Amino acid sequence: MSSRESIGVPRPPMEFNLWGTADEAKPLSRGVRTLLTKAFGVDKPLPRIPEGDVAITESRLAPDDIAALADIVGADRVTTDFTQKLRRARGKSYPDLIGWRLGGTHDVPDAVVAPATDDEVLDILRWCSREKVAVVPFGGGTSVVGGVDPVRGTMRAVISLDLVLFDDVTDVDAESGLATLGAGLTGPAAEFLLADHGLQLGHYPQSFPYATIGGYAATRSSGQSSAGYGRFDDMVRSFTVVTPSGILEVGAASPATAAGPDLRELFLGSEGIFGVITRVRLRVHPIPEVKRYEAFSFPSFDAGVAGVRAVTQAGAGPTVIRLSDEIESSLNLTSDEAIGDASQAPEGCLCLTMFEGTADHAASRHAETRALLIAAGGTPVGEAPVRSWEQGRFGTPVLRDALLDNGALCETLETATDWSNVARLKKAVTRALADALRETGTMTLTMCHVSHVYRDGCSLYFTVLAARGDDPDAQWRAAKDAACRAIVANGGTITHHHSVGVDHAPYLRDEIGDLGIAVLRAAKRELDPAGIMNPGKLLEA
Amino acid sequence: MSSRESIGVPRPPMEFNLWGTADEAKPLSRGVRTLLTKAFGVDKPLPRIPEGDVAITESRLAPDDIAALADIVGADRVTTDFTQKLRRARGKSYPDLIGWRLGGTHDVPDAVVAPATDDEVLDILRWCSREKVAVVPFGGGTSVVGGVDPVRGTMRAVISLDLVLFDDVTDVDAESGLATLGAGLTGPAAEFLLADHGLQLGHYPQSFPYATIGGYAATRSSGQSSAGYGRFDDMVRSFTVVTPSGILEVGAASPATAAGPDLRELFLGSEGIFGVITRVRLRVHPIPEVKRYEAFSFPSFDAGVAGVRAVTQAGAGPTVIRLSDEIESSLNLTSDEAIGDASQAPEGCLCLTMFEGTADHAASRHAETRALLIAAGGTPVGEAPVRSWEQGRFGTPVLRDALLDNGALCETLETATDWSNVARLKKAVTRALADALRETGTMTLTMCHVSHVYRDGCSLYFTVLAARGDDPDAQWRAAKDAACRAIVANGGTITHHHSVGVDHAPYLRDEIGDLGIAVLRAAKRELDPAGIMNPGKLLEA
Repeated sequence: MSSRESIGVPRPPMEFNLWGTADEAKPLSRGVRTLLTKAFGVDKPLPRIPEGDVAITESRLAPDDIAALADIVGADRVTTDFTQKLRRARGKSYPDLIGWRLGGTHDVPDAVVAPATDDEVLDILRWCSREKVAVVPFGGGTSVVGGVDPVRGTMRAVISLDLVLFDDVTDVDAESGLATLGAGLTGPAAEFLLADHGLQLGHYPQSFPYATIGGYAATRSSGQSSAGYGRFDDMVRSFTVVTPSGILEVGAASPATAAGPDLRELFLGSEGIFGVITRVRLRVHPIPEVKRYEAFSFPSFDAGVAGVRAVTQAGAGPTVIRLSDEIESSLNLTSDEAIGDASQAPEGCLCLTMFEGTADHAASRHAETRALLIAAGGTPVGEAPVRSWEQGRFGTPVLRDALLDNGALCETLETATDWSNVARLKKAVTRALADALRETGTMTLTMCHVSHVYRDGCSLYFTVLAARGDDPDAQWRAAKDAACRAIVANGGTITHHHSVGVDHAPYLRDEIGDLGIAVLRAAKRELDPAGIMNPGKLLEA
Repeated sequence: MSSRESIGVPRPPMEFNLWGTADEAKPLSRGVRTLLTKAFGVDKPLPRIPEGDVAITESRLAPDDIAALADIVGADRVTTDFTQKLRRARGKSYPDLIGWRLGGTHDVPDAVVAPATDDEVLDILRWCSREKVAVVPFGGGTSVVGGVDPVRGTMRAVISLDLVLFDDVTDVDAESGLATLGAGLTGPAAEFLLADHGLQLGHYPQSFPYATIGGYAATRSSGQSSAGYGRFDDMVRSFTVVTPSGILEVGAASPATAAGPDLRELFLGSEGIFGVITRVRLRVHPIPEVKRYEAFSFPSFDAGVAGVRAVTQAGAGPTVIRLSDEIESSLNLTSDEAIGDASQAPEGCLCLTMFEGTADHAASRHAETRALLIAAGGTPVGEAPVRSWEQGRFGTPVLRDALLDNGALCETLETATDWSNVARLKKAVTRALADALRETGTMTLTMCHVSHVYRDGCSLYFTVLAARGDDPDAQWRAAKDAACRAIVANGGTITHHHSVGVDHAPYLRDEIGDLGIAVLRAAKRELDPAGIMNPGKLLEA
């Protein structure tokens, strides 16, 4: 780690009340505004409250506390600055973003600390354990499930521990395809540094521009090239995690082992409840020589699912494979340019495929995939839809801010299930959302896509559009609860890649059982005896 | 589970003191005997002691205890029969097999119990927890690391809990490629029952004929088609585990999830220290339409490793890929027919490849793999070596019994490491074995192969041949310890697929650290508060 003496605490790049930066924001096209007004009766714009008018809770840390933290990391790496606290106070879910617009007094961390070494992290955790101060690890702040909420639990205060200074790439072993990345590196920063070695990580979640390596690991992120390069947890070879009980190197010895339980999998997805991931050794690969693209249209979602399943179970080998249902295909939400411009969208359900590797490798995977999709009833419709998706894919979340400006409710949720259960689960979730939102007097547009595939099943990602109700928070919480209950009752997982956070915690017990919860609590008692780590998240809502 | 009233406790098929059954045993070829005598000076045959002459420890269970167990499972499913106890008293490592030949009094389980339902298992574990009786789960008894040793620890007695009656295939979902298999099914029994549905598991460890589904899961087994179908832990979708604290369904909800830590990975590889796996839901696949075979010869092991690495990192897609070093290639130990018949073996290092799937799939994977191996310096040498290996592959362990008869020391050990560390680790282990065994006055033949490949590295499997010393147990333990130290010191894992058992337990702390051990102990306290489950294994040697 290089010297950080004069850097201070860098600000998170995203505006506190937007996805992305202020200059990313863009107004809705006239087509979408018309859709909102005509179809949904959306007519209640909800303006953003300027930063200067936002009321926040008073800090519960005394000057002595700040001085103690400054003793550990240096005075310039502890801050109680208003903007700094605001930007780390919430994630980016619909309730998070709407909350800033609704006014009231907002809960924020009592201080922000940016350590730069494992020992500094350990000293902070020990001080917090003694002083009964909760710790919320912070990476990109892209959580859409309440993962960065500054919950104090039974502690007297809460700090945001920002990993931003863990930002280097070390120990590159190109022969083995391994590199160690700092937990605070964003997706683009990681790829930029790896490219110097001719290497690539290939992890492209929608949060790619802002989310960080540590966050990907802690939340079991999954990227759009997961068919080719796996989920983020598949990429993790080992990591360093600093817990209040000490520093662990987890999973270091070899590419695969039978030496007992795999402790990596206890920390992956643990969302900071045991400690802070500071550095991750990742499986990386050479930058692919070629990319190939082809889109297909299917007459129905069921037919498309059968095609995608055939490709996946044959191991045909696309790097990306995605299938949108009829509604999503017609709206073409995957490209922000074309939103609402249904005239250019092909009929039916759009399936996008992309292939990477050497020329021979990509060509053979393309040929096998193409043959299977055509055999399943798909019609090739060229490269353009895939290229358009690839260009616009990280821009979609920005659209939500404009939808919110205009009075819409817009949110996403996701699950995964067996191939044999896809149709049932999709129907159940769609119906649950429609029924719950109808109670608040709005019709609902729910669209769905498959974007992560496995031999035994796939993810289902839902985007919900409706008119904002009079109590927007209660409106969405009821709809989300209905969707979650439908998922639990119909064979889905409560989250495929958004993670648990605060929002899904009430449903976790259904998923892992009382004894599963008991085992996680036993591990937590061992690693975090004072219970300072991310209280209120995952196990305790 | 069907009615088991009159079945009793089936006997494990393997002889207590042999790998396999009596009729599998075969004498060594003259060539090998000559090699042993001339090269190693092996001249001290060590006959087997007949079963009737074996002395065993007295049962520490009283008639009341047996009656209590009979109350749970029925009298015909508890036994203290001599042969039954003998066959579950040890695994099949060199020290295990040589131990039976050296005489003395052997420790055996105090009783054998064969439950047929989860509730019976739970009742047994609760009775044992109250009565301070240790439990050793038993599947195929193929452990080569002391995994079934009847260790009592601080308990007053020990029972062998045989899963043999968990033997059915249920809940087959061919569309999703999932089926639930009883923990007691052997490899062949599982494949036989799955074939009824046109499905295959594709897990072929060398222990395939005898080892069981539950054992594969508990030990993180890896089969010879792992390049195509993954390690056994990759195949596990979910399972039922009965612990003294209750019954858990682990990992049930979906093909992939971000709902917290993955508890599957806590039980996989846990070797019975938390509970008993009774049923495993597995990822299965259609029986492949075609198989393609091709062998290659490399001028050196390093060149072969580079070729295998290129194939793996490109994702070229062989189902099987193996590389033997010069010594193993010349001895052709992979075929029991040809052992010692070096005249037919190609020069250099033999690399075997096999491809499965549809005709198109297998052909394209073969073409890509072939091109990469040839580019790395490989020379195609036809199908025959692969077919010969495929036919003889489960017969190799039987040879060891004949080698022991004739006075040889013969054992295997295995590890895995990064591609960049393969040469260093192979050299270090080979030297450690040679140095340690030289102390006992014997030269050593150590051969090695790569049989499991990953993007970041591969396994190394060593077979050691030497002359038996005066104290065979001490001789091997010193050599094994030297090899383990060399592995730990040179970047390997203490076991890639043989598991920890008793033998590797002393080295586990090096691999997962003090806090890793502490976390596992915390989980054990939660799930097995009385400490009855498999004491002396994994965490406690």
